[in-house]
Amino acid sequence: MTEGLPLALQEVIDYFARFPGVGKKTAMRMAFFLLQKTPEYHSSFAHSLQNLSEGIHFCSQCFHLCDAHQEICSLCSSEKRDKKLLCIVESSLDLLALERSGCFSGKYFVLGGVISPMDGVGPDQLRMQELQYYLAQYEPVEVILALSSTMEGEATASYIAHTFSSFPVSFSRIARGMPLGTVLQHTDENTLYRAFVGRGNM
Amino acid sequence: MTEGLPLALQEVIDYFARFPGVGKKTAMRMAFFLLQKTPEYHSSFAHSLQNLSEGIHFCSQCFHLCDAHQEICSLCSSEKRDKKLLCIVESSLDLLALERSGCFSGKYFVLGGVISPMDGVGPDQLRMQELQYYLAQYEPVEVILALSSTMEGEATASYIAHTFSSFPVSFSRIARGMPLGTVLQHTDENTLYRAFVGRGNM
Repeated sequence: MTEGLPLALQEVIDYFARFPGVGKKTAMRMAFFLLQKTPEYHSSFAHSLQNLSEGIHFCSQCFHLCDAHQEICSLCSSEKRDKKLLCIVESSLDLLALERSGCFSGKYFVLGGVISPMDGVGPDQLRMQELQYYLAQYEPVEVILALSSTMEGEATASYIAHTFSSFPVSFSRIARGMPLGTVLQHTDENTLYRAFVGRGNM
Repeated sequence: MTEGLPLALQEVIDYFARFPGVGKKTAMRMAFFLLQKTPEYHSSFAHSLQNLSEGIHFCSQCFHLCDAHQEICSLCSSEKRDKKLLCIVESSLDLLALERSGCFSGKYFVLGGVISPMDGVGPDQLRMQELQYYLAQYEPVEVILALSSTMEGEATASYIAHTFSSFPVSFSRIARGMPLGTVLQHTDENTLYRAFVGRGNM
């Protein structure tokens, strides 16, 4: 599809086409958009990309992404966050989604994924040791497991609650049920089952 | 939405979010995808971007995009293309779309847009002088106007046919009508009108 285009352009298109959800056509539109920009724009974009590796590391406390010159992230260093509550998430993106919803004012811990034998991810590939250290060091009272409501997420939540049951902490799991704004008849049966089991008093 | 993220990451997200059709969420997914890559990947991607400005220029004959070390593009230098036919397109993307369809084996000329007074684009902002030179120099027999079927495209086609009417060349316009695979009742009235006017014998 990019046949006949300059090599330099094909290269950029190929990079864009590797992004998740970006097809060849979108990649071409993106590259042509860049073509209209100045050489200075290209350089400064390129500089930002190179800075990705050097400018970012993981917070040594919660493993959220953080500026390279900071030892711990702004959430961990904040005095306003409730230390008694710890929310375990899979990724920084999940953490940000929760922050946007404004539902939580405690601390976070980024696990780095969920247990998924099919993908070769066991507990050792996740930050279980770091979590153990966190629980021992910062002594939260409640741990909220905000993991995906997939089989892998459920299994990981169970694993954590079981593995760290000796800690003086209560484990909770965010609710699973009908998403807001959906019609009952369009909700899948597993979700309906779960919503029924988890029903609460009005 | 990117609050709390490292600056280096926010910068890259901002660049991605400027692409047409890319929202903040997609930009974040793209940046996080890059985060999983190595520093070498970032450098080589960055290098490709910088090369955009230096590695590409316009073919001096048809103004299609072309490798910087080539004076004219592979289409213009090809002996297999029919020099008697010239197809005028707005952009290199349009040229590539026609090439993919395999409908045309003549030469191209990339106009650089269409006349659009609303956007401040008059004939002087397009390659009209270069087109005049092309017609005089290469003497095509038929010029096919493959411009958008918008008001601006129609106006530009009329402008060209009128302006260069003194050249010994016939001007044609690609057909406008119902796109293939569509239902008549879902086709807009302007298209239907045009399809009716342009009907042909079976």
